[in-house]
Amino acid sequence: MNTLLTLAFNGAAYHGFQVQQNALGVCTVLQNAMQDVLGARPDVKGSSRTDAGVHARCFCVNFKHALALPLAKLPLALNSRLPADVRVTGAYAVPEGFHARYDAVGKEYEYVILNNAVDDPFQPGLYYRVPYPLDAKAMQSAAAHLVGRHDFASFMSAGSTVQSTVRRVAWLDVTRTDTWVRIRIAADGFLYNMVRIVAGTLLAAGLGKMPPQEAGRILGAGNRAAAGDTLPAKGLFLNRVFYPGLGGVFEPPPRFAAL
Amino acid sequence: MNTLLTLAFNGAAYHGFQVQQNALGVCTVLQNAMQDVLGARPDVKGSSRTDAGVHARCFCVNFKHALALPLAKLPLALNSRLPADVRVTGAYAVPEGFHARYDAVGKEYEYVILNNAVDDPFQPGLYYRVPYPLDAKAMQSAAAHLVGRHDFASFMSAGSTVQSTVRRVAWLDVTRTDTWVRIRIAADGFLYNMVRIVAGTLLAAGLGKMPPQEAGRILGAGNRAAAGDTLPAKGLFLNRVFYPGLGGVFEPPPRFAAL
Repeated sequence: MNTLLTLAFNGAAYHGFQVQQNALGVCTVLQNAMQDVLGARPDVKGSSRTDAGVHARCFCVNFKHALALPLAKLPLALNSRLPADVRVTGAYAVPEGFHARYDAVGKEYEYVILNNAVDDPFQPGLYYRVPYPLDAKAMQSAAAHLVGRHDFASFMSAGSTVQSTVRRVAWLDVTRTDTWVRIRIAADGFLYNMVRIVAGTLLAAGLGKMPPQEAGRILGAGNRAAAGDTLPAKGLFLNRVFYPGLGGVFEPPPRFAAL
Repeated sequence: MNTLLTLAFNGAAYHGFQVQQNALGVCTVLQNAMQDVLGARPDVKGSSRTDAGVHARCFCVNFKHALALPLAKLPLALNSRLPADVRVTGAYAVPEGFHARYDAVGKEYEYVILNNAVDDPFQPGLYYRVPYPLDAKAMQSAAAHLVGRHDFASFMSAGSTVQSTVRRVAWLDVTRTDTWVRIRIAADGFLYNMVRIVAGTLLAAGLGKMPPQEAGRILGAGNRAAAGDTLPAKGLFLNRVFYPGLGGVFEPPPRFAAL
């Protein structure tokens, strides 16, 4: 049977999700736990690669294996073998043909900024701190220029090969709650470091280093040098992965489909 | 000069605030940082003792020392020497006679419960997890019986000597946000383990193990055995300390004074 698992993980201790040669990926600790629980080490397909240090609230994977225990007991069984920074939050039976990566029609990421002079002792490694006053409204104005179907070549780090740099951004929202500024972005796909570069560009607008409308010109430049800094991975969370027809948290909301 | 510092700390690694012989208290790491910054190790008065593992969002201390640097620079200077789980969030000049413990007219604590089958990988050691369905409304009903001036002897652990076990609880609120249930309690003073026993008693009501009105009878019993469990320290946060006349976050709100 084909099983979809949702995972939440603090990525601080991991070099991304994927299995790596000389660095620990989340997938490896998941497969170690599967070895104990299932007596096998099935091939695990992740919804995406993630960079070292990136976190996830609802990462999705699928694997094929005949389960000897009820599906509902799988999360608890795996969690009892997993390190505390990786949790299986759900298990779902999915059609044989389902593939966590290829079936994803989009994802939502969140970039978390603490806008404060002092760090938060309760959330080490879970945000990027900016000590200077940030204008979240200016960030939102800049963000508006990036929503829609555009060539995001300016927002891609070197080192990746993609056929097209055109992506459809369904929403890009900047919200402030006290000292926390959150950037949420949903798109049909993301280029290498795209969210971190978008966040760095919005940050420049928030700091008054760049007029918000400059974001549109950066898009047109088609040149990485035109955009802002690549912000650190520690502030980045994968929030959701969208799979049409699966319902619940997986279902793309109307706002995603509408654009 | 007399200086008031506000601190936020993750108490997981500490045996409370106070200096101890064979265990690390937050006060010791603060004094170590002061030694570096001030070239002296002033006597530090904390707003309260705290149990091992208890956290604080706004712990208050005062100390007397002639500062060679501007007051506004003190937090940054101390933070650069403090471990990441302890942060100085503010520094204030206070009258010579001010004493962080004796001048406090009340405090607010918060007990954080995660009501979920799965732990949160982002907040290890910062909540108590309850996997069974919790009825927050029943908890609030039980809580209502404890608000006001009462003898809280049933809500005190053995091992403390106090002249009176009468305390005035100004508010005791239970709120649920998704899977998080938060208990906030403000009082003019707290008995040993009082918040953790109150939380354990409300939990019994939330789990349906006890009718909410039983909370009133427990109060009347004057007997620790009548109340619920002492919940673990890891879910407990000191939120605020009230000092009339200091203004800002220190000022007791009307709701505190009204009762």
